[in-house]
Amino acid sequence: MPPFLYKRRIEFRDTDAAGIAHFSTFFNFMEEAEHAYLRSRGLSVVMHDAEGKISWPRVSAKCDYRSAVQFEDEMTIEVTIARLGEKSATFAFTFRACERLVAEGEITAVCCRIVAGKPPRGIPIPADIRAKLETNGKAGMGNGE
Amino acid sequence: MPPFLYKRRIEFRDTDAAGIAHFSTFFNFMEEAEHAYLRSRGLSVVMHDAEGKISWPRVSAKCDYRSAVQFEDEMTIEVTIARLGEKSATFAFTFRACERLVAEGEITAVCCRIVAGKPPRGIPIPADIRAKLETNGKAGMGNGE
Amino acid sequence: MPPFLYKRRIEFRDTDAAGIAHFSTFFNFMEEAEHAYLRSRGLSVVMHDAEGKISWPRVSAKCDYRSAVQFEDEMTIEVTIARLGEKSATFAFTFRACERLVAEGEITAVCCRIVAGKPPRGIPIPADIRAKLETNGKAGMGNGE
Amino acid sequence: MPPFLYKRRIEFRDTDAAGIAHFSTFFNFMEEAEHAYLRSRGLSVVMHDAEGKISWPRVSAKCDYRSAVQFEDEMTIEVTIARLGEKSATFAFTFRACERLVAEGEITAVCCRIVAGKPPRGIPIPADIRAKLETNGKAGMGNGE
Repeated sequence: MPPFLYKRRIEFRDTDAAGIAHFSTFFNFMEEAEHAYLRSRGLSVVMHDAEGKISWPRVSAKCDYRSAVQFEDEMTIEVTIARLGEKSATFAFTFRACERLVAEGEITAVCCRIVAGKPPRGIPIPADIRAKLETNGKAGMGNGE
Repeated sequence: MPPFLYKRRIEFRDTDAAGIAHFSTFFNFMEEAEHAYLRSRGLSVVMHDAEGKISWPRVSAKCDYRSAVQFEDEMTIEVTIARLGEKSATFAFTFRACERLVAEGEITAVCCRIVAGKPPRGIPIPADIRAKLETNGKAGMGNGE
Repeated sequence: MPPFLYKRRIEFRDTDAAGIAHFSTFFNFMEEAEHAYLRSRGLSVVMHDAEGKISWPRVSAKCDYRSAVQFEDEMTIEVTIARLGEKSATFAFTFRACERLVAEGEITAVCCRIVAGKPPRGIPIPADIRAKLETNGKAGMGNGE
Repeated sequence: MPPFLYKRRIEFRDTDAAGIAHFSTFFNFMEEAEHAYLRSRGLSVVMHDAEGKISWPRVSAKCDYRSAVQFEDEMTIEVTIARLGEKSATFAFTFRACERLVAEGEITAVCCRIVAGKPPRGIPIPADIRAKLETNGKAGMGNGE
């Protein structure tokens, strides 16, 4: 199965006074790419089943910056599932612009039952969601990318 | 009664590749200042009464830019109520940095009953909220600042 | 000539605790759409000619909100040039989601010579840029949409 | 020397449709707190010396989320220097709301000479800047907080 790729142009608002995309914007790019990945598998970060609402609060996020990008640069973000635990998923992201490595990041999210007025409660990833997440052929083996 | 003033420093994330605060950030500054104004009167943009939740969806917003501000500049934002209608309030904002005029803006919001799963419904501003909003001595006369 | 349309999905970061796209995000959507419009005409908001850099600082921006949009909603933004003055351009934006009117906005920007260390200086829009902006068949007549 | 504390209220724009501060906003809070820390020591993230401009591009950033915060919650962010290398500094951040642990994060930045038109070039942290950074009594020992 080919890798999942998400394209994103650097908008003017993404830049800062150093003339480059601000480091914090990469976390938004990662989330956008993750959500596009989920949609490509018939999923969403907010879903409903017979018992109510399921979502994926983030427990950690990180990014390593390798080179800078500027206004109107086009990035390609490769999304893979690095780890798929009983209740959590770790998405890995590689950012490139014209083949040049720009950044590498990860987000770990926990599958949670969402009930209004209560804190999110971690649940085992439902089998139908797990089956769709595993279709990238890399997940489920616990050894990342 | 003295005007309500809210201070805000330009953070690095507020800037763009032109080296100045991005025009869109002024709408966030206005909202921050409005909410600080509400808190100063014992109000919040999201409140609860016996019938449930009340909030203030925005129906229009605008800003005129007079001069630029840069990273670490400190702005003073003056907040007044320009118009107070039966169901709506228009907040006016004047941005200054070291006495220099930076921008002038307005936000109009409608007092709404918020019920989950339904669109917000405009309601007459409850008397206790209106009384607190009117304490700036300028509102209620319909002639702005 | 058909209208220029720009598509934009509501990302999770665009939403707020009211469950809808935050009012300030529409100013970023407008700028994104304006810049896509410029690229479609072979222009950019930051250009260089024989004398140096030309850009378009914003002098005013406004938006009227008609209905709300939520996470993963897809909007179509129609971009037109409402007014083209000697030194300025006003872009008008109409936001729709599934034919429903969501918002209407405007941004006015001034064509400026940008010299490092000096404030931007308004200049008559260069003829080659003007010619490309006028290709939407509505501009230049001063009566907008 | 007491720890450096930076207070930050959750603004409405910081929230998302899950009703809490969006995970990406913590990277902006960290940068705000870092810059306040630098100012408290007579420094800035952008400085000038006899040879030109010095700044601190970020090479990595991460955050672990422990509990959620909502609109109008007030956070206290403790800033320390976890590591001070020859050319780099790692800032560590602990977020609390009413004594409850909210998040823990880190940003590593490299001291760089900034020359227009060239990529940033890492340089040993100048002695006068290093002296001011070391005043928190924890840095320079390489063992973080």
